[in-house]
Amino acid sequence: MLHILSVDDLSNDFLYSLWQEAIFKKGLINNKLKGKILTNLFYEPSTRTSSSFYSAMTRSGGAVIPINDVQFSSIAKGESLEDTIMTMSAMSDAIVIRHTENGSARRASMVSKVPIINAGDGNGEHPTQTILDGFTIYCFNNKKLSNLRITLIGDLKNGRTVKSLVKLLNRFDNNHFNFVSPSQLKFSNPLPSKYYETDNIDEVLKDTDILYVTRVQKERGSRHNYSLSMDQLNSLPKKSIVMHPFPRINEIPQEFDKDSRAKYFDQIQFGVWCRQILLERVLS
Amino acid sequence: MLHILSVDDLSNDFLYSLWQEAIFKKGLINNKLKGKILTNLFYEPSTRTSSSFYSAMTRSGGAVIPINDVQFSSIAKGESLEDTIMTMSAMSDAIVIRHTENGSARRASMVSKVPIINAGDGNGEHPTQTILDGFTIYCFNNKKLSNLRITLIGDLKNGRTVKSLVKLLNRFDNNHFNFVSPSQLKFSNPLPSKYYETDNIDEVLKDTDILYVTRVQKERGSRHNYSLSMDQLNSLPKKSIVMHPFPRINEIPQEFDKDSRAKYFDQIQFGVWCRQILLERVLS
Amino acid sequence: MLHILSVDDLSNDFLYSLWQEAIFKKGLINNKLKGKILTNLFYEPSTRTSSSFYSAMTRSGGAVIPINDVQFSSIAKGESLEDTIMTMSAMSDAIVIRHTENGSARRASMVSKVPIINAGDGNGEHPTQTILDGFTIYCFNNKKLSNLRITLIGDLKNGRTVKSLVKLLNRFDNNHFNFVSPSQLKFSNPLPSKYYETDNIDEVLKDTDILYVTRVQKERGSRHNYSLSMDQLNSLPKKSIVMHPFPRINEIPQEFDKDSRAKYFDQIQFGVWCRQILLERVLS
Repeated sequence: MLHILSVDDLSNDFLYSLWQEAIFKKGLINNKLKGKILTNLFYEPSTRTSSSFYSAMTRSGGAVIPINDVQFSSIAKGESLEDTIMTMSAMSDAIVIRHTENGSARRASMVSKVPIINAGDGNGEHPTQTILDGFTIYCFNNKKLSNLRITLIGDLKNGRTVKSLVKLLNRFDNNHFNFVSPSQLKFSNPLPSKYYETDNIDEVLKDTDILYVTRVQKERGSRHNYSLSMDQLNSLPKKSIVMHPFPRINEIPQEFDKDSRAKYFDQIQFGVWCRQILLERVLS
Repeated sequence: MLHILSVDDLSNDFLYSLWQEAIFKKGLINNKLKGKILTNLFYEPSTRTSSSFYSAMTRSGGAVIPINDVQFSSIAKGESLEDTIMTMSAMSDAIVIRHTENGSARRASMVSKVPIINAGDGNGEHPTQTILDGFTIYCFNNKKLSNLRITLIGDLKNGRTVKSLVKLLNRFDNNHFNFVSPSQLKFSNPLPSKYYETDNIDEVLKDTDILYVTRVQKERGSRHNYSLSMDQLNSLPKKSIVMHPFPRINEIPQEFDKDSRAKYFDQIQFGVWCRQILLERVLS
Repeated sequence: MLHILSVDDLSNDFLYSLWQEAIFKKGLINNKLKGKILTNLFYEPSTRTSSSFYSAMTRSGGAVIPINDVQFSSIAKGESLEDTIMTMSAMSDAIVIRHTENGSARRASMVSKVPIINAGDGNGEHPTQTILDGFTIYCFNNKKLSNLRITLIGDLKNGRTVKSLVKLLNRFDNNHFNFVSPSQLKFSNPLPSKYYETDNIDEVLKDTDILYVTRVQKERGSRHNYSLSMDQLNSLPKKSIVMHPFPRINEIPQEFDKDSRAKYFDQIQFGVWCRQILLERVLS
């Protein structure tokens, strides 16, 4: 049984094979998962991620039990995660879980009779986001994930998408990382082999192939303003790409959306394509 | 790409054609929308309307991503309407949107890559309600929408269903409107060509072919009581019909439900039939 | 039209026939309910029960309108239960209703144009839980429901699952009931023909074929602690079975889950199987 808990569970071979199929299928409708049932078990709401799985599962002919309201439900009334997982694994063929606590997806996998897909556990991992982030780079960088200058900006301390993407890209040759964050939100270990740290984005924009922008949440206490201006974004190399896991508040102006370097809406579409192939593999 | 934003977007030809097909199909199950995905994006809950679209889409073999909880979701955390629409249009083939603000459906249509259907935007429009209201009259008035005496009662100032229905009926010949409301909740412009205003329903009941009842919300500050009695309803002409967009509080007594003039439950069924045909047209 | 409102509506013949089919089909995917639409109308959330119906309906190819948030929805704004039922019965082919008030499922059945299935009404009935509880005994007791020593423990005064199960088992020959509860939460009438009452579980564990454990809710004011220990559970006869309608808080230690007598997760699976057959019968 294949659980998807961490980017560490995903070999390069597995990813390349999944991406090749995703780029070939492009979300095409089929009936491979007809009669299969997925549970979307979201302990904290995430409309984007739960809808992406919903769309992916439906494209392959499967059905989804949408549980987006665990905090209001009877499940919340003191039932253990293990009992909830045992319950839903008696009713469905796989479970996508989003939870507030780091490690909860792994706990779920210990008791589940069906595959568990981690859709974000606290400040832990979010491997399907990494699959789509990697796929985006794969698509726009000639199917390669090496020889890249990656600039990551925002809250690099708490952001699980950043942590997992660095883990993934550090597996490939000759990648250089620029970490741009307020000093109290610096990227923590494990640090990649080649990196540079700063709190000033202007130092590195020109030396960037991939700009990965994340949000700095107000409650983290940063006084830095990481709203990028059109001038700053225009100073990026012509062949660079700009990514964002969303939601976006004011990190990137809407005006930039039409720029050919803006790939954040492609990411969302790619998420559906990749999750569809992933579900087909996990459920077959 | 066909957006359904306002009753002004719906030509008489379009409506007649849709109604003719709806009356012929009567919600019949088919597979026309197999593999298609609709997003129900409800910024304020409306179980009746979202369920109607759900039922309609499902009848044609399609699937629905139900987002009925936007106010609790991550989407609510400061993301712009435009980003949410871009997101959902990357995952689905059409978007039904209910929003608290007038004009939001049109804003959505400006950025969406898939058709937008307005399911109510603030005190603006609710064109699919008008489609089913018009269909109800079409069905019970020999497929004609002319030569009618229409009495509208309730909060005529804020009710978007009233506004849109008057717009529609005013396109047809020789329709006369009776507006019955407290003075502070009077129907505002654009006024139709022939109308009469009063705050006393008893003046006009006998001269009514269609009685369209709406709710006066307490918070609007009216002291008027528009609960119709059985005696009042029985004074309507035998061939008249009584409509209500629902929910009903106490405007019409439950006792009247069995009267052959009561058509408000037909309206609900007709809503499913009409929306099914509409979705088939929008999505093909 | 077949409404499922009370265990009293379910004849032994009906139950045996349903169970025989359920044990034969075991939740097998089919297309019997293709094009059929079920409304899950939950006035109080119950993820377990609503998901079970969702899974059951989907296994037979049908669709579900999930209304799990009535308390937040426009339906909640003063609309009568009757109007809501009329509305949903114009859009769907059957309605599963969970409600806070005893008798509400029967009220729903008075106006509905489609079958009503009671999924719990206040402290009234929950007949589909009884179907699966009975099925569990049927499966693990050689397809018989007679000659049993049943020990029920917990809040026997308010628990609707206990009431309905006693009603069912009392129809069969030679069943003896042990009621174990704090004195203020004693099982009330109608009492079965043979029973024994105590507040001490240790008196009866050795004379138990079926141990049916329920939760004592704190707010009921009991000072008793009905957390069973491994020692207590191990003193049950080797051929006995332990059931629980869930959610479980601390009545049964997780350590016992692997014991072959623990059947509470089988109950959950059996719920899907039984509800699938039930839906097929109600909807055909």
